[in-house]
Amino acid sequence: MKKPVNVAVVGATGVVGTALLDILAKRQFPIGTLYPLASHRSAGSTISFKDQKIVVEDVAQFDFAKVDIAWFVTRRSVAADHVPLAAAKGAIVIDNSSQFRYENDVPLVVPEVNPQAAKQPPRNIIANPNCSTIQMVVALKPIYDAVGIERINVATYQAVSGNGRTGVDELSRQVDEIAHGKKPSLELYPTPIAFNVVPHIDVFQENGYTREEMKMLWETRKIFNDDNIKVNATTVRVPVMYGHSEAVHIETRDKITPQQAIELLRNAPGVKVFAGNDYPTAVTHGAGADPVFVGRIREDISHPRGLNLWVVADNVRKGAALNAVQIAELF
Amino acid sequence: MKKPVNVAVVGATGVVGTALLDILAKRQFPIGTLYPLASHRSAGSTISFKDQKIVVEDVAQFDFAKVDIAWFVTRRSVAADHVPLAAAKGAIVIDNSSQFRYENDVPLVVPEVNPQAAKQPPRNIIANPNCSTIQMVVALKPIYDAVGIERINVATYQAVSGNGRTGVDELSRQVDEIAHGKKPSLELYPTPIAFNVVPHIDVFQENGYTREEMKMLWETRKIFNDDNIKVNATTVRVPVMYGHSEAVHIETRDKITPQQAIELLRNAPGVKVFAGNDYPTAVTHGAGADPVFVGRIREDISHPRGLNLWVVADNVRKGAALNAVQIAELF
Repeated sequence: MKKPVNVAVVGATGVVGTALLDILAKRQFPIGTLYPLASHRSAGSTISFKDQKIVVEDVAQFDFAKVDIAWFVTRRSVAADHVPLAAAKGAIVIDNSSQFRYENDVPLVVPEVNPQAAKQPPRNIIANPNCSTIQMVVALKPIYDAVGIERINVATYQAVSGNGRTGVDELSRQVDEIAHGKKPSLELYPTPIAFNVVPHIDVFQENGYTREEMKMLWETRKIFNDDNIKVNATTVRVPVMYGHSEAVHIETRDKITPQQAIELLRNAPGVKVFAGNDYPTAVTHGAGADPVFVGRIREDISHPRGLNLWVVADNVRKGAALNAVQIAELF
Repeated sequence: MKKPVNVAVVGATGVVGTALLDILAKRQFPIGTLYPLASHRSAGSTISFKDQKIVVEDVAQFDFAKVDIAWFVTRRSVAADHVPLAAAKGAIVIDNSSQFRYENDVPLVVPEVNPQAAKQPPRNIIANPNCSTIQMVVALKPIYDAVGIERINVATYQAVSGNGRTGVDELSRQVDEIAHGKKPSLELYPTPIAFNVVPHIDVFQENGYTREEMKMLWETRKIFNDDNIKVNATTVRVPVMYGHSEAVHIETRDKITPQQAIELLRNAPGVKVFAGNDYPTAVTHGAGADPVFVGRIREDISHPRGLNLWVVADNVRKGAALNAVQIAELF
C-alpha cells in the first residue's frame, strides 16, 4: 500500500499541467493534498481534479516545505527561479524544462530506460527530458541493450502543442484565417505553420543546428550514459495538434534484423509495436495515448547494420506529463 | 529563333496539366498548335491558354502524328495505354508517370543534372522523374560533381498536391469537417491527413519500404548514372497543399564544408540557396516558384564526411510540370 504524499503542480493551468492532473487522477497516484500552482497571472483561477475545484496559488508565495513532490511544467525562466527554492525546502522536484537537464548532478530520467538514475538525486532535482528525445529513447532502448547503437539519424515531425496552448492557438487561428480568405497572422512562430512545415524549433546554435536538435544528442547521451553515441537530428514543426512523429534511422554495433527488433519491442515496457504494413500516426495513435508507438521497422538498405523505425507518441503525455508522473512513481 | 512546334498536353485539366499550360505561356514556349487532351470523361471541357479558350479533346481519339511533342501528365494507367501509341506516331513523348521510368531505353531526365541523357531517345519516350527525386538531385548535383556522394539518408515532408486535385480536395474537406466538429471523412488516404502526418506514399514493397521510397533510390541512381550511390528514404505525406520539403543527410566521398557547399549551390542552375539561419519553407518559398530552395546547410556532427540540407520546391512545378517543359526545351 502506498503512503499518500503531498504534491504541487507548478504550471497547473497549462497544456502539460492539465494533462498531468488528468494522469495523476487516472493512475490513482496516492495524493494527500494537491497544490496547483502557477505564475501570479494565473493564480486565483481554479482547476478540476477528481471532480473537485481547487484554487490555483501563486508559485512565488508558496511554501514548498508543505509538499513531498513538486512537478514543474512551466517555461524555463520560471523553473530557473523557483526550482532551486523548492528543492532547498526538501521537495523532490521533477522539472520539465531544459533549465537543469545538462547539469552533472541532475539526473535526466526516462523510467523505461534509466530508472536507476533517479535514485537519491543530489540536489533533489530530477529533470524530465525533451519530448522528442523521450519517445525516441523508449523505442531504441531494447535495441541499444541487445546490439548497441553507434549512430542515430533522425528527422522529426513535431506537433504545435510542444509550445503549449500558444502553439495550438497559433495553428487553429491561422487555419481559421485562411478558411476566411485572410492572410495568416504571426504571433508565436516566425513563419506560418498552417499548411506548412518549419525546420526551426528553439534557437539556432553556432554549428547550424537548432537547440532542439542538439538536445536530442545531449539528452540521448546522458540517458543512455554513453558519450560515444552519435546523433544527427533535423527537428521540424508540423501542423499537427498533438503527437510527435519521428523518422529514426539507426546504425547498430551488431546486425539486427527487423524481425528481431520487432520481437524485442513487443516485449518492451511502454512500447506498442506495429508489424507488417500497419503504422501509427499522430491522429490515430499519438494523441491522448500513453505508449510509444513504433512501426515501419525495416532494414536500412543503405547500410549493413542499418535499421529504420517510425516512432509516434503523445508529446504532451509520454513526452512530458506522463513521463514526469512515472518518475515520481519510482519513489 | 525557335521554330514553332505543335504540342499536345494529355491530362490538361489536372493540377499538373494546368501548371504546365501556365508555364508554357510564361516561358513563351514556341507553340504552333496546342492540343489539350484528357480522358473521355473530361473531353469537351475547355481550358484557358494565353487568354484563349480551347476545347479539350479525347486522348483515345487523337492522332499524335499531328504533334512534335506530347506531354503526358496523367495517371500511370493512361500513360501505359497511350504513350507507346503517341511515340509510335513520331511524337517525342515526355511522360510524368512512373510507367516507363525504369526501362533501360527510356531516359529519365532532370535538365540541370543529366541533360545529355535526353538526346535521341530510342523509343521517342523521355520520362520525368518523381517530384521528391527531382528537387533532391538538383540540390545534390553540384556536390556530387565536386566531392562524390556515397549515401543519402532522406526524410520527406510531401504536399497533398502530389496526388493532384484529389489530394488537395481531401485535405481541404477534412479541415472543413474538423472545423465544424465533424469526424474527417476518408476518400483518398487510408488515414486522416488533416492535422496529421502519414508515412505512407504509394504501395508497400516486400522489403518494407514504400514504392515512393524505392523510387528515390532507383531514380537517383539512374539520373546520376551511378549504381553505387546508396539511398535510404522515409517518405511522409504532410498537410501542406503545395511544396515538398526534405531533410537530406548525405555522406560524401571527400569532405566538403558547409561553406564550400553553399558556394557551389550559389552558382548552381535552378537552385536558390539560403545561408545563415534563414531557411525556405513550402508556404514561403515552395508554392508557385520555379527554383529548388536549399537551406540549413550544416555539417553532420555524426559523420566525418556528413552534410545536412533542407530542400524545398514546388512539387507541381519543378517536381513535375516545369521539369517536363525544361526537358522539351532541350530539343
